[in-house]
Amino acid sequence: MTKCAVIGATGYAGAELSRLLLGHPEVAELVLSSASAGGESISSIYPNLAGAFGSSGRSGILADKSEAIERADVVFAGLPAGHAEEIAAACAAKGSLFIDLSGDFRFGTDEATYTEWYGKPYARPELHTTSVYGLPELNRAKIRALGEAKSGALLGPRIIANPGCYPTASTLGLYPALKGKLAETEGIIIDAKSGVTGSGKEPTKSTHYPECADTIAPYKIEGHRHLPEIDAVLSLMAGTKVASVFTPHLAPMCRGIVATAYFRLAKKGMKAEELREAYAAFYKEEPFVRVLAAGAVATNRNVRFSNYCDISAHIAHDGKTAVIVSAIDNMVKGSAGEAIQNMNIALGLDEKAGLSMLPPAF
Amino acid sequence: MTKCAVIGATGYAGAELSRLLLGHPEVAELVLSSASAGGESISSIYPNLAGAFGSSGRSGILADKSEAIERADVVFAGLPAGHAEEIAAACAAKGSLFIDLSGDFRFGTDEATYTEWYGKPYARPELHTTSVYGLPELNRAKIRALGEAKSGALLGPRIIANPGCYPTASTLGLYPALKGKLAETEGIIIDAKSGVTGSGKEPTKSTHYPECADTIAPYKIEGHRHLPEIDAVLSLMAGTKVASVFTPHLAPMCRGIVATAYFRLAKKGMKAEELREAYAAFYKEEPFVRVLAAGAVATNRNVRFSNYCDISAHIAHDGKTAVIVSAIDNMVKGSAGEAIQNMNIALGLDEKAGLSMLPPAF
Amino acid sequence: MTKCAVIGATGYAGAELSRLLLGHPEVAELVLSSASAGGESISSIYPNLAGAFGSSGRSGILADKSEAIERADVVFAGLPAGHAEEIAAACAAKGSLFIDLSGDFRFGTDEATYTEWYGKPYARPELHTTSVYGLPELNRAKIRALGEAKSGALLGPRIIANPGCYPTASTLGLYPALKGKLAETEGIIIDAKSGVTGSGKEPTKSTHYPECADTIAPYKIEGHRHLPEIDAVLSLMAGTKVASVFTPHLAPMCRGIVATAYFRLAKKGMKAEELREAYAAFYKEEPFVRVLAAGAVATNRNVRFSNYCDISAHIAHDGKTAVIVSAIDNMVKGSAGEAIQNMNIALGLDEKAGLSMLPPAF
Amino acid sequence: MTKCAVIGATGYAGAELSRLLLGHPEVAELVLSSASAGGESISSIYPNLAGAFGSSGRSGILADKSEAIERADVVFAGLPAGHAEEIAAACAAKGSLFIDLSGDFRFGTDEATYTEWYGKPYARPELHTTSVYGLPELNRAKIRALGEAKSGALLGPRIIANPGCYPTASTLGLYPALKGKLAETEGIIIDAKSGVTGSGKEPTKSTHYPECADTIAPYKIEGHRHLPEIDAVLSLMAGTKVASVFTPHLAPMCRGIVATAYFRLAKKGMKAEELREAYAAFYKEEPFVRVLAAGAVATNRNVRFSNYCDISAHIAHDGKTAVIVSAIDNMVKGSAGEAIQNMNIALGLDEKAGLSMLPPAF
Repeated sequence: MTKCAVIGATGYAGAELSRLLLGHPEVAELVLSSASAGGESISSIYPNLAGAFGSSGRSGILADKSEAIERADVVFAGLPAGHAEEIAAACAAKGSLFIDLSGDFRFGTDEATYTEWYGKPYARPELHTTSVYGLPELNRAKIRALGEAKSGALLGPRIIANPGCYPTASTLGLYPALKGKLAETEGIIIDAKSGVTGSGKEPTKSTHYPECADTIAPYKIEGHRHLPEIDAVLSLMAGTKVASVFTPHLAPMCRGIVATAYFRLAKKGMKAEELREAYAAFYKEEPFVRVLAAGAVATNRNVRFSNYCDISAHIAHDGKTAVIVSAIDNMVKGSAGEAIQNMNIALGLDEKAGLSMLPPAF
Repeated sequence: MTKCAVIGATGYAGAELSRLLLGHPEVAELVLSSASAGGESISSIYPNLAGAFGSSGRSGILADKSEAIERADVVFAGLPAGHAEEIAAACAAKGSLFIDLSGDFRFGTDEATYTEWYGKPYARPELHTTSVYGLPELNRAKIRALGEAKSGALLGPRIIANPGCYPTASTLGLYPALKGKLAETEGIIIDAKSGVTGSGKEPTKSTHYPECADTIAPYKIEGHRHLPEIDAVLSLMAGTKVASVFTPHLAPMCRGIVATAYFRLAKKGMKAEELREAYAAFYKEEPFVRVLAAGAVATNRNVRFSNYCDISAHIAHDGKTAVIVSAIDNMVKGSAGEAIQNMNIALGLDEKAGLSMLPPAF
Repeated sequence: MTKCAVIGATGYAGAELSRLLLGHPEVAELVLSSASAGGESISSIYPNLAGAFGSSGRSGILADKSEAIERADVVFAGLPAGHAEEIAAACAAKGSLFIDLSGDFRFGTDEATYTEWYGKPYARPELHTTSVYGLPELNRAKIRALGEAKSGALLGPRIIANPGCYPTASTLGLYPALKGKLAETEGIIIDAKSGVTGSGKEPTKSTHYPECADTIAPYKIEGHRHLPEIDAVLSLMAGTKVASVFTPHLAPMCRGIVATAYFRLAKKGMKAEELREAYAAFYKEEPFVRVLAAGAVATNRNVRFSNYCDISAHIAHDGKTAVIVSAIDNMVKGSAGEAIQNMNIALGLDEKAGLSMLPPAF
Repeated sequence: MTKCAVIGATGYAGAELSRLLLGHPEVAELVLSSASAGGESISSIYPNLAGAFGSSGRSGILADKSEAIERADVVFAGLPAGHAEEIAAACAAKGSLFIDLSGDFRFGTDEATYTEWYGKPYARPELHTTSVYGLPELNRAKIRALGEAKSGALLGPRIIANPGCYPTASTLGLYPALKGKLAETEGIIIDAKSGVTGSGKEPTKSTHYPECADTIAPYKIEGHRHLPEIDAVLSLMAGTKVASVFTPHLAPMCRGIVATAYFRLAKKGMKAEELREAYAAFYKEEPFVRVLAAGAVATNRNVRFSNYCDISAHIAHDGKTAVIVSAIDNMVKGSAGEAIQNMNIALGLDEKAGLSMLPPAF
């Protein structure tokens, strides 16, 4: 049994993490923390959680950050970029596992890219040398090694950088093609549509109901922070430098990302069934990736509130271009659920523990 | 461990029941049945459920009705009105528990009312003499007795009539006031708003997205089938005949009912806090009813995908009229979840088994 | 031809007014004003309006308040409560017609009620003695008189208080019954549902898409500012003091109010057809009120983007309670359109000028 | 003044056409026709239109097809594919202008492509030799010539094939680039998102509110009927054969198409401002195309209920790929409005007549 803490528990990612960890069978204690609402009960802010607390180890009262770190073996942070290094350092000092949901640790030793997109250098570059990018389908062994390190001669911090929501959907959709050399790596285009929870908790003009209902709004076409992350992961997957085109769109739905990715087929005349089978074989053992049968198209509807990533592989009418649709719930597989999956792997638990919820049909 | 069957598994209530029973820790076998899709896998119709089957006792292949009844100890039916008596008879013959989600058994021996609203008489009136109306908060003891009867000298069928969605929300909102004689029973008004899943799976003009988005549509103002059911339950609760006014509205949301009920306070000058405390005390031990604190207002948002009924009690500015807001997820507490709660009670299981899902905030 | 100004043109009411006045055939000049965005073009804030300006008399550049008042014959203000008296005074000094969309002038000489609900006394009580409450169906003659006064011996300012959105929908739904003594005035209940534009332009937690989509949220049950306004108008209509119960709900739609009103029939045994005919006869000559035929139910869908108020009259199953549904577009008949209707009446124009847009079906 | 008929007036395109023609200042008579509802009033089917009829020449009673053709000078048809040739022949015999909203006349003499995608050959190939593809921005001169032909020595029928909704949005977004040789014609990708009205009036599983709310659903990825139409138009625009990739998505909104198109820049190092200026210059004189300023992104929100097409031109972070966003209201510029624009051009009317409605902001 594990003691977990969530720092930033009142943000959307933190709140979803809190909800899911409350149902995790291996979590004995859960400490929630919030800088803005210390001392309050989380259910005063999230009344959906009323009645979920009170049992031993789960008070629901928002603690401060240092108490949260002090009491937990696994610390999650769902804060805006720029706050994770300090928490990572505290966790490292204490020997606990740190799973960060921000962008702070996603670029590893590539500080230049982080600085370009996040506007500041690393304060503690040494923390970034051993952190692991927590896309389980790509890095399961490394994530597991973090956990095993614990009981051995660990030198250095144990940090998992939980992937961004767009990068999770986008890169899982392209991984089989890149790894299997089915795709030309030039000219990859990712047209992604996200629900509004992806914008977080803060009300803004673009998330104001009358402005965002009934509307598809592309944004940050010239460059979104998730682009360099996507390109870094795609490059790893392909074994060569990939520079994709990535266009995010805000769609009038609460949850979900649907990424429609386009690439030219490396092999002339490849048939859709062959492509689909390659995808199905590639993900055969993955507990949370479902490759759809011919005729079906992935959509966020079928994965909402679950940790699944649904993928459907198609070939366009031109016969040359693959169209891959990948769909996730941005708050689960794209955030809180993936973080729990990472914890499960690192701790050697059943990878599906706490993540067995089936997506509702409606 | 129990063997369950769901007849009508491809309707909305049946599909939600199937999804929830798949996660129920005490259900060893689950047989799904559909007249329209026999032989198919349910996940070909509900792709959200892909991957949920295959384990022993859960094939996901849609069986026929008689096979479902044959194999199960507890049979649920989610069929349109008019089909339940036949299933009830088969279950009675076999000695299994039958939980019906249609209106067929909700009127007990009051065949006249059933006939008036459902357009046909009982075919087997004898089955209606011992059936129990499955509103746990009202009839928990009777529901439990059905289960205990099993091991004793039961003569007669064991049938639970699962309440309608509007009646669940409406009557739970009024129960404390009626039981506690806080309300005048003349002039009760229930203005209820339901999400579109309440209309079921069949596409119609009024559920066509372009016709129902962005729209509040009152309907069946002169009389909805749930009105006599509501009045029957309210009358039981009040110990006197109640004839309410009930206006259903279709609202542009997938799930949820918000019932706003109005009654004149029996006691002049009652304060809101007193009313609220009476409600809180009344439901103190109920596992699925949450009476909100002063200042909060119930809404379907906080109960979606859960078995909770949230209730807030208010007094209008006139000082004479109570305004009670009760909110449920129509597919869970108003249908599939309540059916499972009834099963749990009848079988002597933990009442919350399989129903521990926390509502998401967004 | 008229010169109009809109003060507060960048708020939601002001923006809608600006859009509608741009299409008004009798408006020769239109000056828009905004305290927050002076000097900018309104189409930089409302890109929907791009291309609508540039013609003579319509620059689209946001002027300051005094310039707007200086240049216009008719001044509209769409500001938060508390700012209208000053503008009214300036208009009075200049002899121009002032149409205020806030609550500031809706209470006439009943300063006590205004102060109770709006939190401050009148600064210039004298301005409130001659202002007219601009519900055309109730006060057409008085509104017209304001205009005629102009050319005659005007003593005092010419101020029209444009009604609130909820009061417009609610009181129009009850007017025929109250005037015709069809309703008992005790126990009137108004359960109203509004789209999110009713909350205005400012993003807040309750209008944040992920919090308000898929949700019906009752609010201010104990007392909303529109309650005293409704009661004042209903009392006028009934010729006796009315104290209603009014419950507003926020619904997940952009535009529209559906008010479901309940009253006990004064005449025992009144039939629905009789009620409906009384309504139809009452509103026969009204250009913007449509009383629906038997079998139809009013809904905001059929009035969106138009100045119509649709009303359907029903009798509940109890035979004693009337259920009246009235539906408007809160931004048009509930705000900007009604303001233009008031201007048209006051200026002696065709009452439908600039308001001929037909509601779209979808 | 013109006499117009709408055949198929109860379908979505026909209903929108009817609504817009009712407000057209040059339409003296309007005959509506419906095979399914002959003899009824259209406002019994579309209650939003109640009260719009009754004036001379506008009865609102649904006539039969032959009467409609008989009485009108301009005949519009909004029928499913396969019914237009017969109407075209009747119009030709009578000498009236026929504007067809189906796909039947969009392929001109390329019968092979029509047959491949629509499943049947032309019955009257001769009618297709002179029909004009009614994209005003591309074919204004030809459309105008149809009208002028009338008074001269017309040989042959006068038929305008109104473009599809996706083709309108997609090809307008690419026209300046193709015409100006700014784009490589290989590898063009169009990722388009449409509101649900695009699916028409018939309720189906995929347009059932609980299945399509909160969901982005790509569909017909391997080939949609609008693909060959898009490619035919793009090829004309480019002066060379274009085979694009086109992926339609169903989005949870009533109206609108947002097409995000991708192409490689023909000129290395082209800057975004240069691209944008080329677009702005190209469309400078177009009354219904708005090219947005730098920093703005096109979205359907700003064009809803209007005949505008908004376009924003961007260059992706890779510096090589242009991203063009074009947005229309699929029912107006993508259907009924464009049809009226075509009529206006053909008849020599003000091109904006009847189309002056400004899009609402919310």
